Amino acid sequence: MKIMVLGGDGFCGWPTSLHLSNLGHEVIIVDNLSRRNIDNELEASSLTPITPIGMRLATWQELTGKRIDFHRIDVAENYHRLLTLIKEHKPQAIVHFAEQRAAPYSMKSPSHKRYTVNNNLNATHNVLCAIVESGLDIHLAHLGTMGVYGYGTAGMKIPEGYLPVEVVTEDGERVRQEILYPANPGSIYHMTKTQDQLFFAYYAKNDQVRITDLHQGIVWGTNTNETSSDERLINRFDYDGDYGTVLNRFLMQAAIGYPLTVHGTGGQTRAFIHIQDTVRCIQLALENPPEKGDRVKILNQMTETHRVRDLATLVSDMTGSEIAFVPNPRNESAENDLHVKNDLFLELGLNPTTLSQGLLFEVTEVAKRYAHRADPSKIPCTSTWTTKQQAGKPKEGVLDTVSS
Amino acid sequence: MKIMVLGGDGFCGWPTSLHLSNLGHEVIIVDNLSRRNIDNELEASSLTPITPIGMRLATWQELTGKRIDFHRIDVAENYHRLLTLIKEHKPQAIVHFAEQRAAPYSMKSPSHKRYTVNNNLNATHNVLCAIVESGLDIHLAHLGTMGVYGYGTAGMKIPEGYLPVEVVTEDGERVRQEILYPANPGSIYHMTKTQDQLFFAYYAKNDQVRITDLHQGIVWGTNTNETSSDERLINRFDYDGDYGTVLNRFLMQAAIGYPLTVHGTGGQTRAFIHIQDTVRCIQLALENPPEKGDRVKILNQMTETHRVRDLATLVSDMTGSEIAFVPNPRNESAENDLHVKNDLFLELGLNPTTLSQGLLFEVTEVAKRYAHRADPSKIPCTSTWTTKQQAGKPKEGVLDTVSS
Repeated sequence: MKIMVLGGDGFCGWPTSLHLSNLGHEVIIVDNLSRRNIDNELEASSLTPITPIGMRLATWQELTGKRIDFHRIDVAENYHRLLTLIKEHKPQAIVHFAEQRAAPYSMKSPSHKRYTVNNNLNATHNVLCAIVESGLDIHLAHLGTMGVYGYGTAGMKIPEGYLPVEVVTEDGERVRQEILYPANPGSIYHMTKTQDQLFFAYYAKNDQVRITDLHQGIVWGTNTNETSSDERLINRFDYDGDYGTVLNRFLMQAAIGYPLTVHGTGGQTRAFIHIQDTVRCIQLALENPPEKGDRVKILNQMTETHRVRDLATLVSDMTGSEIAFVPNPRNESAENDLHVKNDLFLELGLNPTTLSQGLLFEVTEVAKRYAHRADPSKIPCTSTWTTKQQAGKPKEGVLDTVSS
Repeated sequence: MKIMVLGGDGFCGWPTSLHLSNLGHEVIIVDNLSRRNIDNELEASSLTPITPIGMRLATWQELTGKRIDFHRIDVAENYHRLLTLIKEHKPQAIVHFAEQRAAPYSMKSPSHKRYTVNNNLNATHNVLCAIVESGLDIHLAHLGTMGVYGYGTAGMKIPEGYLPVEVVTEDGERVRQEILYPANPGSIYHMTKTQDQLFFAYYAKNDQVRITDLHQGIVWGTNTNETSSDERLINRFDYDGDYGTVLNRFLMQAAIGYPLTVHGTGGQTRAFIHIQDTVRCIQLALENPPEKGDRVKILNQMTETHRVRDLATLVSDMTGSEIAFVPNPRNESAENDLHVKNDLFLELGLNPTTLSQGLLFEVTEVAKRYAHRADPSKIPCTSTWTTKQQAGKPKEGVLDTVSS
């Protein structure tokens, strides 16, 4: 299959590109290198020593003989280059990771809010518009987020995208309907993903574009079979206050002897998935596209749920690290339950990597190995969700534990 | 009250600005004149002879002694000028009309789709972001559309924004919830308004911005008490294939002896409101803002529903015009019922202008009076909803009857 990967240089995009290439697909990466540029802005960098995209691709070809094309295009800004590329290459599928993906970054300032909205919404719309204008029957697989659902309703399992409800009519009649799960985003970033869903629903309905939306949990782990085959292919590992996801940051904190920073009570329950399962899920999604004319196919791309303080305890028990409870910069409930359906991927044959299997490996092989590269000053999260919180924020900065 | 009107030079914005000014409010118009520029692009113009914004404002001051400020700012592009203006003027309310508002225009080409998405979403987000950044407690009243609801469900009255539903939990327990009415937009334009709703829900929740979203029906009529007080204040009347709304176009077609063009069976039921009621509704919305911390206040801004072919018959009976049935460029059901709640405005004292009262006046005072200005070549709608329709479109162009 010919597959275009938008955002193919990023944390999920890079291992996905290698995984698909390794399976024998022809992969074309489109990326504007925005994630590397944001590292420059934040004066932060990956804990792991990632190489430039040119060296990544040359290494892959040297090792496997497989060639991956790369085009530096800003998908949100340069519609016509994207369209031309699609018309030239005629991919059967496009995987769309080309969005700003950190909730704390999206809340940093008005300009970061506006960048996230403008970039994410125009990127998604440009891809859809270009698929229709190309006249090609291309399957679009998009990385959504579990955050579109909000953080769950007591007693109810979060379904895969669609919620069956009953509406009572004027005549007292009950009408059963299946609706898109009512959106309840917790940040500007998450909000853009709920707006993406409306793009998808519209283009599936009006233009019969085949679309799969993958609502992913928080990704943990660093490498996949492919990215660990040579150090020059290593994947990013973010630990800074904006891009570091909770579990990876605990691992890094443990490795450098920094306390594991838990927000509020740590009572937030979140969904998780290992990066190796991410790339496998995308493979499965591409192998099982919806039919033309179908509604958007939505799958929950997660394998486990955990309470943040339980994760901290797990890592603490494994490493002897201290746990520090700090104020929560987010505007959310202190405690929540979360039950999530993920039957669709399990039925397709996903065999999850569990925390209990993989965590110790991450501690020793990644976090400890590269601990000398860590800059502890980048750990605190300086983004807060409201100006009120900013005013009341402790001088040393509020620490963030979750981001997806 | 000090009120900023974004899009205050447009079809709804101009009469609203005059109405609010006449009530004694201090009005500041912000507009990039995009609607006049689109006239240049489409080589079309208002049936009525609208004057430039400078002459409009000078005339208003000459007649009433009241001054309305005007700033030519692109709200979607120039965030910092908008923010500065808000900080300088400290308005108590902002009325937001600054969006591309024609469904057929939004479907004209990929570039029109992309313009509508980029303009409407960035405009709305910039306004919200600027309100939060200003630190002021400003009530935002936004013009939404009945189109966010789709075209109704048999037997069910469309509520005002929120739908009570029952969800069945894993334990078989029924949980009642009130959710934002599931969006079902019929065009790119309507889709942007459903995405606006998610901006509003988020900013009301996270930042306690006070927001009213007015889901307006198709506006008919041309003038209000204020715009009819001097010909230099006259409001626009669009009859072209992109911007002309169904009833106004029937009136103009009758006036120039062109057949009344009905799409398909004309079985589409739509909601309507007279422009005089539009300005009164906005006044009522501004006088009755939500409290800080409330969810978004949603009101249906419409007064009657009619089937398109019944409207054609009404105008035909009144004028002796022929009716011509032509292919429908839209991707929609041929026939639909529509029942809409509008209790909130009626409770606030709205006393609707009905079609039966106002229609004959429009025919004689506007359509016939300015019929000599009509260019019949601009009547056909050349936008179609899908490329398939484009391929099958009759040579003489498909005619459009509805737009809102």
